Amino acid sequence: MKINGVHYRTVWMEESVVKMINQAILPHFFKIEELKTHQETAQSIKDMIVRGAGAIGATAGFGMAQVVVEAPDSSAFQDSIKAGARTLAHTRPTAQNLFYAIKRVKDAAERASSVREARQNAIEEAQAIAEEDVASCASIGCHGAALIKEGARVLTHCNAGWLAFVDWGSALAPIYTAAREGRSVFVYADETRPWNQGSRLTSFELGNEGIRHAIIPDNASGFLMQRREVDLVIVGADRIAANGEVANKIGTYEKAVVAHELGIPFYVAAPTSTIDPDCPSGQAIPIEERAEDEVLYCHGLLDNGQFGRVRLAPPDARARNLAFDVTPAKYITGIITQRGVFAPGDILRALDA
Amino acid sequence: MKINGVHYRTVWMEESVVKMINQAILPHFFKIEELKTHQETAQSIKDMIVRGAGAIGATAGFGMAQVVVEAPDSSAFQDSIKAGARTLAHTRPTAQNLFYAIKRVKDAAERASSVREARQNAIEEAQAIAEEDVASCASIGCHGAALIKEGARVLTHCNAGWLAFVDWGSALAPIYTAAREGRSVFVYADETRPWNQGSRLTSFELGNEGIRHAIIPDNASGFLMQRREVDLVIVGADRIAANGEVANKIGTYEKAVVAHELGIPFYVAAPTSTIDPDCPSGQAIPIEERAEDEVLYCHGLLDNGQFGRVRLAPPDARARNLAFDVTPAKYITGIITQRGVFAPGDILRALDA
Repeated sequence: MKINGVHYRTVWMEESVVKMINQAILPHFFKIEELKTHQETAQSIKDMIVRGAGAIGATAGFGMAQVVVEAPDSSAFQDSIKAGARTLAHTRPTAQNLFYAIKRVKDAAERASSVREARQNAIEEAQAIAEEDVASCASIGCHGAALIKEGARVLTHCNAGWLAFVDWGSALAPIYTAAREGRSVFVYADETRPWNQGSRLTSFELGNEGIRHAIIPDNASGFLMQRREVDLVIVGADRIAANGEVANKIGTYEKAVVAHELGIPFYVAAPTSTIDPDCPSGQAIPIEERAEDEVLYCHGLLDNGQFGRVRLAPPDARARNLAFDVTPAKYITGIITQRGVFAPGDILRALDA
Repeated sequence: MKINGVHYRTVWMEESVVKMINQAILPHFFKIEELKTHQETAQSIKDMIVRGAGAIGATAGFGMAQVVVEAPDSSAFQDSIKAGARTLAHTRPTAQNLFYAIKRVKDAAERASSVREARQNAIEEAQAIAEEDVASCASIGCHGAALIKEGARVLTHCNAGWLAFVDWGSALAPIYTAAREGRSVFVYADETRPWNQGSRLTSFELGNEGIRHAIIPDNASGFLMQRREVDLVIVGADRIAANGEVANKIGTYEKAVVAHELGIPFYVAAPTSTIDPDCPSGQAIPIEERAEDEVLYCHGLLDNGQFGRVRLAPPDARARNLAFDVTPAKYITGIITQRGVFAPGDILRALDA
């Protein structure tokens, strides 16, 4: 999608260098990071320079290709690949796309009959994952756009736009598609504390695509739904369990319960790479607990034009920072995938469709 | 209650000077403001130097006493009183305690047979309102403490502690009382964007009273309830309609719906001065919409030790900032008043009890 009218992808690989938009400092500064080794790439995931299910997946795929390229042409080749895969897998625990991409690139390398072929396979597979992400998200946009009527007011949580994928996004793709089909759409973007993906990234994306929107405190989404100022909710997903339970950014569960209570349609949008068929239910999804400081401080642009932070809490205060929550299937109207819209209980069918 | 072991009230009046703790800069700086005229006092409410239903009420009462003291001893006396009452009433629209206190002090002045007596009556009535607030909150503490068992984990939203009243508080008074009765209590404090009353004020209060607690993003309270890490919820109220619907800080509605869905008790704590018998339902309660910048920025302590802000959103972003929401009676387990715990549908009985 576009930034100041120029098309960008969130993350891409040139030769064996991974390049990505630094999302930790958006929208205040626009910077492309260049990560030359798989360790640097792993660190970029850990530090949330790149974030969002699909973008994490594509980055991990590229990182795994770097692992294979970097592995010594010796008896240590296989061990290096295993170690590199572990490094990448230990960056963040919740997003399924991370594990999906690491496995696909590793499997592709292991299918090769020579080290040279393994490197070629790994790079091709990583590029293929990124291309599939773009195609899947474009297709999610088409399937989801049918749900968005003229004048629709859509609530979204966190950022599941193109910055959370390689391009297009999941939750925002239907909005972009509906807008390109000529329909007027208004978006309420939850600011999404503590990392403010909504006020920083979703607003940045929507502004660049010319979509009218308002940022709201996370606390306000329920009341706007109660006042019937929201027609439908669309969010992303970090992992979808076999029973249709969805792990997504903390706060998603609350919005889903309120939408259900009020009879407002609540959709999850995600490519099938987000589905974890080996995970029977949401209870089995590891929920990342991040540093307390993300809650005790707030980061942004200082009045002097530099990036900085303010402390919110007393010096000795403690916090808890669960990064994701789990939404039971009964609160979800449908899951929009690249293969159509599925009932949550039917989500495994999307893998075979 | 205590700050560094010293007892303070939130707001008080000496001669005709209103003194208050500046809550806009807590917990980073501790400053007592001195407001010499009713205009200054009105501005302190508008600027949220003082906030919280009971503290706004007491301050408005003191401000109304200032109006009466300042009114010229002439034929313009009555007009000055009406104009001063209007100035105070137009500071903030939602908290019932504001209108309650203005009317009581105005009525007391109008009962007098001389200007001198009117001034005396006004000051005495304003002081009486503040004393009643303290007594009511202490009594709310006693009634509410019975609901808090040993080891209870209580979720609260915004700040309805002593800083939101003259002393003790409403939602936090039961916690303080249970703690003084020797029970161990753990509090989850919603940070309460956009003004962060939770991370700034509730955490400050609880820390000073030695109550164990953790600040959480507003997004996390639903998931903690789902994981059964919350035993009960207690919040305050800015206005209670005759049918038991409750206006309180934005976000309250969401927490109430989730608690109801999970069968977790959800209590509102408020003195009867918060009840508006003339307001038939929550729909009739005016909901304040505040400046967009509160959402687009976040205020706090800069790394250089000064009070400042960071911008979260892109330069051209817009926001909506509804300050309160309305929780329907069916989601409320009980309303804790100084006269006992009432079912929301029975709340008018609290006025006669």
